[in-house]
Amino acid sequence: MSDKLKIAVIGAGRIGAVHARTIRDHHSAELVLVADPVGDAAARLGAALGVDSTTDVDAALVSGAVDAVVIASPTPQHVPHALAAVGAGKSVLMEKPVALDLAQVDDCIAALGDDADRVMVGFNRRFDPSVAEVHARVQAGDIGAVEQVLIISRDPAPPPSGYLAVSGGIFKDMTIHDLDMARHLIGEVVSVRATGQHLDPEVDDTYDAATLTLTGAGGAVAVIVNSRHSAAGYDQRIEVFGDQGTLEVTNQRSSSVRMHDATGTERSGLFLPFFLERYQRAYAAELDSFVAAALTGAPQSPSIADGRAALALAEAAAESAATGAVISIGQEAIR
Amino acid sequence: MSDKLKIAVIGAGRIGAVHARTIRDHHSAELVLVADPVGDAAARLGAALGVDSTTDVDAALVSGAVDAVVIASPTPQHVPHALAAVGAGKSVLMEKPVALDLAQVDDCIAALGDDADRVMVGFNRRFDPSVAEVHARVQAGDIGAVEQVLIISRDPAPPPSGYLAVSGGIFKDMTIHDLDMARHLIGEVVSVRATGQHLDPEVDDTYDAATLTLTGAGGAVAVIVNSRHSAAGYDQRIEVFGDQGTLEVTNQRSSSVRMHDATGTERSGLFLPFFLERYQRAYAAELDSFVAAALTGAPQSPSIADGRAALALAEAAAESAATGAVISIGQEAIR
Amino acid sequence: MSDKLKIAVIGAGRIGAVHARTIRDHHSAELVLVADPVGDAAARLGAALGVDSTTDVDAALVSGAVDAVVIASPTPQHVPHALAAVGAGKSVLMEKPVALDLAQVDDCIAALGDDADRVMVGFNRRFDPSVAEVHARVQAGDIGAVEQVLIISRDPAPPPSGYLAVSGGIFKDMTIHDLDMARHLIGEVVSVRATGQHLDPEVDDTYDAATLTLTGAGGAVAVIVNSRHSAAGYDQRIEVFGDQGTLEVTNQRSSSVRMHDATGTERSGLFLPFFLERYQRAYAAELDSFVAAALTGAPQSPSIADGRAALALAEAAAESAATGAVISIGQEAIR
Amino acid sequence: MSDKLKIAVIGAGRIGAVHARTIRDHHSAELVLVADPVGDAAARLGAALGVDSTTDVDAALVSGAVDAVVIASPTPQHVPHALAAVGAGKSVLMEKPVALDLAQVDDCIAALGDDADRVMVGFNRRFDPSVAEVHARVQAGDIGAVEQVLIISRDPAPPPSGYLAVSGGIFKDMTIHDLDMARHLIGEVVSVRATGQHLDPEVDDTYDAATLTLTGAGGAVAVIVNSRHSAAGYDQRIEVFGDQGTLEVTNQRSSSVRMHDATGTERSGLFLPFFLERYQRAYAAELDSFVAAALTGAPQSPSIADGRAALALAEAAAESAATGAVISIGQEAIR
Repeated sequence: MSDKLKIAVIGAGRIGAVHARTIRDHHSAELVLVADPVGDAAARLGAALGVDSTTDVDAALVSGAVDAVVIASPTPQHVPHALAAVGAGKSVLMEKPVALDLAQVDDCIAALGDDADRVMVGFNRRFDPSVAEVHARVQAGDIGAVEQVLIISRDPAPPPSGYLAVSGGIFKDMTIHDLDMARHLIGEVVSVRATGQHLDPEVDDTYDAATLTLTGAGGAVAVIVNSRHSAAGYDQRIEVFGDQGTLEVTNQRSSSVRMHDATGTERSGLFLPFFLERYQRAYAAELDSFVAAALTGAPQSPSIADGRAALALAEAAAESAATGAVISIGQEAIR
Repeated sequence: MSDKLKIAVIGAGRIGAVHARTIRDHHSAELVLVADPVGDAAARLGAALGVDSTTDVDAALVSGAVDAVVIASPTPQHVPHALAAVGAGKSVLMEKPVALDLAQVDDCIAALGDDADRVMVGFNRRFDPSVAEVHARVQAGDIGAVEQVLIISRDPAPPPSGYLAVSGGIFKDMTIHDLDMARHLIGEVVSVRATGQHLDPEVDDTYDAATLTLTGAGGAVAVIVNSRHSAAGYDQRIEVFGDQGTLEVTNQRSSSVRMHDATGTERSGLFLPFFLERYQRAYAAELDSFVAAALTGAPQSPSIADGRAALALAEAAAESAATGAVISIGQEAIR
Repeated sequence: MSDKLKIAVIGAGRIGAVHARTIRDHHSAELVLVADPVGDAAARLGAALGVDSTTDVDAALVSGAVDAVVIASPTPQHVPHALAAVGAGKSVLMEKPVALDLAQVDDCIAALGDDADRVMVGFNRRFDPSVAEVHARVQAGDIGAVEQVLIISRDPAPPPSGYLAVSGGIFKDMTIHDLDMARHLIGEVVSVRATGQHLDPEVDDTYDAATLTLTGAGGAVAVIVNSRHSAAGYDQRIEVFGDQGTLEVTNQRSSSVRMHDATGTERSGLFLPFFLERYQRAYAAELDSFVAAALTGAPQSPSIADGRAALALAEAAAESAATGAVISIGQEAIR
Repeated sequence: MSDKLKIAVIGAGRIGAVHARTIRDHHSAELVLVADPVGDAAARLGAALGVDSTTDVDAALVSGAVDAVVIASPTPQHVPHALAAVGAGKSVLMEKPVALDLAQVDDCIAALGDDADRVMVGFNRRFDPSVAEVHARVQAGDIGAVEQVLIISRDPAPPPSGYLAVSGGIFKDMTIHDLDMARHLIGEVVSVRATGQHLDPEVDDTYDAATLTLTGAGGAVAVIVNSRHSAAGYDQRIEVFGDQGTLEVTNQRSSSVRMHDATGTERSGLFLPFFLERYQRAYAAELDSFVAAALTGAPQSPSIADGRAALALAEAAAESAATGAVISIGQEAIR
């Protein structure tokens, strides 16, 4: 393996473009190929970044010119693409969710066997500098025992109807990030309660807002509050309450300007608009971690088992919201 | 009736003393009597405030020298004391909870009949200037339709074991304020989910922390997060998220000092220690409202029906926490 | 002397009324008389507070029924009123400034001799809980050596023209509080530079804004920024920068409500409107200190020497603003 | 001229490296050469960035392979380097200060003639997104007439003695940025008052802290507070007070984490460590502006006249600090 990790990006959509640019600017990675089967998407992205492009995704996944692939294709292709690339000896960074169906993830894990270590699932928020700082300080004992976690996550505006139709619903599409964050902060979850809301009549989906309560194996509780809209911008907050103190990730803005006048004081700008802006540094740090593990052969993390666990919680949340029941999570299933 | 409302305070404990001092300093009220059957409690408080005192509570409740009574006796006596005073023509400000048993409240409401208008239940937080401002701005439409409410309420430290034994548990004793606040902000509640936690092994009670999700008749959801301890002080926050914006009540401190040094920046003092400090202005505004209604004959609010509704939610929460079920609230029952 | 300090208030204007109410509510003081020679001002205030009133100020100052007087008369009468009261054995709390003319203050100090210990000058801001906390923490060494102090003090709106005509100008009327605060935080001042501004053409005075730089004997510098208007309310901030950290007094509001919407985030309410609201607790703490010293015979502080020192700085500032020169302060003069 | 601006960087020190990296990542610029006469500085930077390097600065300045040069050489060489490059037809981005001696700047301006339009002086803070936002909103009239500007600028720690010896002193080295910012916000300055402090005995310079008051031609006043040390990190704040409101640039941090515990609440991390971190985005935006003007032939801004004006104010400040006099600025001199 060369001293730079040669990477192909599969999928030239919005998130694929984010990864491609991040790879191009990375000191230990080299973007060698962009692949997308649809129209000229790959060609345009490749031209913009000065790298080769192709519509032949299957060839890209197993190309001898690449060491690793980033899978940013549509969700149903995540598993087949990952299996192909891993089978060809590549390291894989796979976007979330792993799949929309838990059985498919189980089959994937079975097929991967020990090679699962070479797969990272793109729970990028773990790599956000503020989240990583809170996690490290929690692990260091700064706030004592973690007792209650509050995760507020609201998108600025609902996605287009076409996207909603294939998204798998709010729990698998949006909450899944918060479910991973809850596991990251309170450990394994043993039960899930969820309440869905349908607030905006123009959103053609079962729910466009939700509230979840997760109980951890150690007794801590995590509350997640989601909405598909937020007037003041992308609302992304975390509070970890421990018996010795509280650590918070607060919202971020594009400037540090405040205004005071006769209509009010301390008025700041809107929250950062959406995930591309809010998690820009997280994508870079995620790539750092992926490249370092790929180059050294260390196991990737978050793993596909983390991806499965979050998906299992999302399915439990959907069931709880539909039935009103508390859903117990089989611990054997999520290990 | 004189131009000042003559008031007796029943119960010379901590909260009785708060009311007595507030009455003494009120421009339209006159503190005429403090009554407590136990030891010299009434005598000491009366002496401190320069008013008469008695151990004969029954006589105080019906005394011809008073227009109104504030009932700050132990919870089991709230109902009999209120019935006696109302029967003697007094206006009554009754501390929460009305009782620990819903049937007793129903009997009380039945016995009061139309005289229930003369009874205020002491949900003092409605009168906090910040809460009142948020409520007024929500009513004025400043944030559009209310969709999600978040109420964080954590006491600084658990009460003594003796108190816990008669408190009725966290839901009736502590959460009841937050349940009233939820109703105040999202309207009638149609279902309750609750999760209890037992965090501090030294607390001799079923739960010392809890998380609730309430669904309102109009589709809004309120989340309540409670704990019996909080390292940084009394944690009292409310967020009302609407489709056009969010209004928050943030924590308060005793000074506006901040410090910046090599260990961190913007460090402020602890949150106000507990309810006496945090809700001092609320007690005064509550008394304002009580006195004004008593002097004009207007119906008191929050009413005993509000007290009953909050208690019904507390009972539902206890059942949900114990069984895991979502508890539906019969709307006929809480009107 | 009785166990409560019997106090007369001289002057029934705005600030006299503040003192009178504070005294009435004080546990160790008794408001016995309100005196004002003009019209029915004293009668109305006395009636409102339930105490005697008189238009005979001279008699009030020496009345055998009082232990202490609060002098809230117009500035030219501060000195004669103080001398009369002290001569009759009273303790005196005198509003600032002591006089508009330094020579008159020197004559007063000479006439008082050792009795000056019985005179407090009303630099109420020293008693503000936030200011007192910063001062105590600075004294305790929390930020190391004090190097730079920044005092921002802006009134919400200019006073009426009639008041301006007799105010002595911005430095003696308004800046004088900040000059005392600078001395309180950096110690004696050895030189003064000042720049005046005339911003609002409707203000009939030499300056309605000013910027001062004071150098302390120990090498610290204090900067004062003043304005007679401030769109967002009464702007009252202090920063003390030391070699180990910074302590700040930030602005205060009447509620802890914040709003986030499409026009901005973290919008809080206006600053407290003016000194009555902002320094309400300071007036109470000032009275505490005055009463305690009067009852025990301890020397009052801030002293008339503090009043003289602030006035000397105000005169130096006026001279500096007029001439552009740095004005040295004779240390012998301000001790 | 090609469609990308070909740029050479002169000087491979800290600030040269910042510019070189920013150019390398710029979509419309191409880094073609790094030049530094000392040792292997250029070679190492060139190798790190994958571009050619040379020790022959004179050749680099006039190389036919470059369209523009960034001058990050030691201050005494700024003028000769700029004249050489401009003489060879290049656009020039010159670090501040232009020179340490005003006469040398005047000679430079005279020698440049109309070619001065091709020279930008690197007052990078104008391009900081928060500063640019405040400037734009001030220009748009959001706060009415600008009346008082407060600029707080404190370095985290003093530079090494070797640097101090050739820095020209605090006013030319450090304050010069704030002087440019004052002109940017209040317009031309007509008088300067300055007070120097020597706080840290280990700093071998006349002053290591200073306070300035500048009066603008239109009557606004700007206050600058400087220090060579700051325990909580790089303290960079601006307040613009207008008759209708205040706009602030507040300090920035590397994360949005806050902590609350028994030692205090709302504790955030330190301010960003120093200018490389705080003004990273400013350097990128500065380059954007430089490249755009160079490619279109528009006049560069901030101009060398801006560089001269800031230097004239720095010299006036030094004189005022030494003599105590107010220094008037000849308006003819700074145009």
